[in-house]
Amino acid sequence: MKKINLFDEGNFNDIAFKTLLVHDSENFKILNFNFRAGQELGVHSHDIDGEVSITIIEGTGEFLAADNATIPAKPGDVLVCKIKVPHGIRATTDMRALVTIAPPI
Amino acid sequence: MKKINLFDEGNFNDIAFKTLLVHDSENFKILNFNFRAGQELGVHSHDIDGEVSITIIEGTGEFLAADNATIPAKPGDVLVCKIKVPHGIRATTDMRALVTIAPPI
Repeated sequence: MKKINLFDEGNFNDIAFKTLLVHDSENFKILNFNFRAGQELGVHSHDIDGEVSITIIEGTGEFLAADNATIPAKPGDVLVCKIKVPHGIRATTDMRALVTIAPPI
Repeated sequence: MKKINLFDEGNFNDIAFKTLLVHDSENFKILNFNFRAGQELGVHSHDIDGEVSITIIEGTGEFLAADNATIPAKPGDVLVCKIKVPHGIRATTDMRALVTIAPPI
């Protein structure tokens, strides 16, 4: 049993969004992404099975999808997406997101 | 790609904590637990492989462990625990938690 706090341990960086590895095991990988306003993780996908969940902990922005589609992102949002399907995220304000990948990449 | 918002869709109940199924697939099961102050999910475990992550979205309380041990719980906390290891959660204030189980039970 282990615990981390995203607000205490997840840092920001003015150059690019900052990633904190929360957990990595045979079951899932859990990452915390911290974006300054305007930063983004561009649309990407991987040609493998599995899914990703993205939970907005703090801040607002947009989830990014194929063909420049966007979906508003706010605290409490949980997006679930196949890893094969193009996805990304862009921060309008400073934003913290929790990402879970299963099976882990 | 699907999105739900925990604040919009996760409801409370004065009788017992309320569960919202966010997602269930071959990769992971994602649940939202909403506790009124004082409600709890008691210590339990399952004799199977796999892990569970518990993220505190809102509110404070305690994670519960074997032998009456407790760990403070606050927003931004992410607890990761093997499903075999006794775990639970108790709310001091109204509390929303997001639970991910992989592989899914």
